[in-house]
Amino acid sequence: MALRAGDHSQAAMTGVKEKVLTLDTMNSSIRRVEYAVRGPIVLRALELEQELRQGVKKPFTEVIRANIGDAQAMGQKPITFLRQVLALCAHPDLLNSPNFPEDAKRRAEHILRACGGHSLGAYSISSGIQLIREDVARYIQQRDGGISADPDNIFLSTGASNAIVTVLKLLVAGEGRTRSGVLIPIPQYPLYSAALAELNAVQVDYYLDEERVWALDVAELRRALRQAREHCRPCALCVINPGNPTGQVQTRECIEAVIRFAFEERLFLLADEVYQDNVYAEGSQFHSFKKVLTEMGSPYAEQQELASFHSVSKGYMGECGFRGGYVEVVNMDPAVQQQMRKLMSVRLCPPVPGQVLLDVVVSPPAPSDPSFAQFQAPTRPSQELGLAPDMFFCMSLLEETGICVVPGSGFGQREGTYHFRMTILPPMEKLRPLLEKLSQFHAKFTQEYS
Amino acid sequence: MALRAGDHSQAAMTGVKEKVLTLDTMNSSIRRVEYAVRGPIVLRALELEQELRQGVKKPFTEVIRANIGDAQAMGQKPITFLRQVLALCAHPDLLNSPNFPEDAKRRAEHILRACGGHSLGAYSISSGIQLIREDVARYIQQRDGGISADPDNIFLSTGASNAIVTVLKLLVAGEGRTRSGVLIPIPQYPLYSAALAELNAVQVDYYLDEERVWALDVAELRRALRQAREHCRPCALCVINPGNPTGQVQTRECIEAVIRFAFEERLFLLADEVYQDNVYAEGSQFHSFKKVLTEMGSPYAEQQELASFHSVSKGYMGECGFRGGYVEVVNMDPAVQQQMRKLMSVRLCPPVPGQVLLDVVVSPPAPSDPSFAQFQAPTRPSQELGLAPDMFFCMSLLEETGICVVPGSGFGQREGTYHFRMTILPPMEKLRPLLEKLSQFHAKFTQEYS
Repeated sequence: MALRAGDHSQAAMTGVKEKVLTLDTMNSSIRRVEYAVRGPIVLRALELEQELRQGVKKPFTEVIRANIGDAQAMGQKPITFLRQVLALCAHPDLLNSPNFPEDAKRRAEHILRACGGHSLGAYSISSGIQLIREDVARYIQQRDGGISADPDNIFLSTGASNAIVTVLKLLVAGEGRTRSGVLIPIPQYPLYSAALAELNAVQVDYYLDEERVWALDVAELRRALRQAREHCRPCALCVINPGNPTGQVQTRECIEAVIRFAFEERLFLLADEVYQDNVYAEGSQFHSFKKVLTEMGSPYAEQQELASFHSVSKGYMGECGFRGGYVEVVNMDPAVQQQMRKLMSVRLCPPVPGQVLLDVVVSPPAPSDPSFAQFQAPTRPSQELGLAPDMFFCMSLLEETGICVVPGSGFGQREGTYHFRMTILPPMEKLRPLLEKLSQFHAKFTQEYS
Repeated sequence: MALRAGDHSQAAMTGVKEKVLTLDTMNSSIRRVEYAVRGPIVLRALELEQELRQGVKKPFTEVIRANIGDAQAMGQKPITFLRQVLALCAHPDLLNSPNFPEDAKRRAEHILRACGGHSLGAYSISSGIQLIREDVARYIQQRDGGISADPDNIFLSTGASNAIVTVLKLLVAGEGRTRSGVLIPIPQYPLYSAALAELNAVQVDYYLDEERVWALDVAELRRALRQAREHCRPCALCVINPGNPTGQVQTRECIEAVIRFAFEERLFLLADEVYQDNVYAEGSQFHSFKKVLTEMGSPYAEQQELASFHSVSKGYMGECGFRGGYVEVVNMDPAVQQQMRKLMSVRLCPPVPGQVLLDVVVSPPAPSDPSFAQFQAPTRPSQELGLAPDMFFCMSLLEETGICVVPGSGFGQREGTYHFRMTILPPMEKLRPLLEKLSQFHAKFTQEYS
């Protein structure tokens, strides 16, 4: 009481009112949000870069960012054809230039005709340009061996993140024991935990099996669901395939088992498939949830609700800065789909340049097109790995070597185990010394602290 | 009971389970969201366009969209210099082309140097590229007669909408009688009502004074606040200046009164200033809340919390499709500002092409630059108006004339009054016949239904 009075008189003396918006008064759901990919390690990396620029001496000369799947920041060059089409769309005077291939010009004209006022500067309809959604549908149909896709079930978005949050927003409801629960893998990509915290939904963890290279085990799903039902209302299951941060590619059998589980337990399925073009391990193959679900036939094909996400940020294109992505919904209640359309319309439309890139990605030059050979240029992996210890390890690694990775705690890990997540996007000439430095640091660190 | 049993047996017979996600189970806050700018009138307009393409006979040959501030969709041409810089950034091979002015090339190189991997395809930091935030700060400083702006207080965003929702998200909290209330003008731009519904906050209406050309009256603010305090915890006041949909430009005296009111009543101020370049009426002048607040001196200058929003979608640039915008926060609690930075980081970054456009908008070519004359080309108004009746009027107008406007109910209006909102972006040769048709329709309509 004395303390409060003291506070008040001090405020009166200086004439300073307390802020309206403080940590105490703000939205507590937002305060609970954590986002490791850009957490304290990355903030410190920014400071270190600043210090290096100011000439401060460090045991390294540059910070190497292996914390985020950002291919072009690591020196990967964009695909020329993508950028040609984009430049032509942005500045249509270039359509008269002899320095652009005919197929790039045709594509740009094709896209511009579908834009309001034939300009990238007009809003598109909220779900994205019709022509581009049609091209995405054709791409999905081809990817899935002919299984049809409906452009009206495709919503373009501001990166996959935006689409994922939109679907989660529709799903979460209730209070107390009827609060929505959403099953997410551990380790996960921290967008999920952040979005669930923000939406005040219950995060239900299921652990991937590190012993089996981070495979998904339906028995573990069952355990997580059973426990969750004691305190919330689980309504959705998120699967990340190929795994982020694990890199694990699910087998067809695993996907079938997950679909059967979701159907029996009445869970809406969210399939984060943004790494579908990043499959490297021999014998591995990407199977889309949509394809497997459809091929499983009745009742799954006509009833299991699914949202599948993809992005132009990952894969061989790595065009993160454009924030292009999409979601395809399958078996969604038409009335809910109408609500989703309405919700997206409040933000007007996804950025049109990202929509343009997506169009080129889903319908690349054909073998008969002049740009075909160039488009096929070798691409770099952006696969993700999962290894061992945590925050202290990562901060020490950054301070001593300039290598920026993310502690496993931000993605989730079994209690008592420690990991970090790194991306392997740096070019070969940087990647080799990076791995050598990392290996030396790791040996020294484990010796020092074991 | 009989009905439920019947339902169950029917489900069992057909083997069809009810959907997991239905209107009944979905997030009820989302269901409550309404967004008139893209509501039923606009959906019907889309259908009519489709029917016209299919050769269906109508009393008009095209749909004219006066429902949304989308200049380029209405035929306004983008500013060449903006698009040149964008094309150069998207496809840097063009930097060697003799067909681009030197200042456009210099600007593109300047921006690319500030991008990760010198590419638009890399993520930027979550608050936006540092260089661009510095340019925005310089622009604000110049606009406000030298009052300084700090780049660290500027957050680039995916259009102004995204920034507005982010600030609202921080502000809303509580349940029942402690639920946050946010004062918004009626009529308003429906993003506000939609966002507040989505965030489950209380929308507190204050009415603009139609008799005084939609002026803001502090006595009315006081009335709205007093009534709201009986059932919620009002914490913020939104002001749209120049008004949307009213076009009203607030006087300096009015802004001072609003700031004094917000300070006394402990309300966080949100100033939606996206139409700051659209001031046409003689004697009118735009005053930014930041400038007035600062010039009012102590205690307002150091204490009143404010967020001011701007966009590349409006004004003379009208680049809606790129989704570029920013918010400047003033006197925000540093701990909360850190939370805001974290929240933005979850969505990674605003689209980089929109950031690039914003940079050119805030630092256009100087008089000594080769592109200066071209950049000064005459621009079209995108001012908004407010007139009279509602949904039936708008739907009939659309069906009979192809003119698409929005009923006033979507923006809010005093009970018993009816309005519609139209934008006047169509080019002159369309605008004149549009206004004639509208005037004939209005005469006929009021005669028929009065």
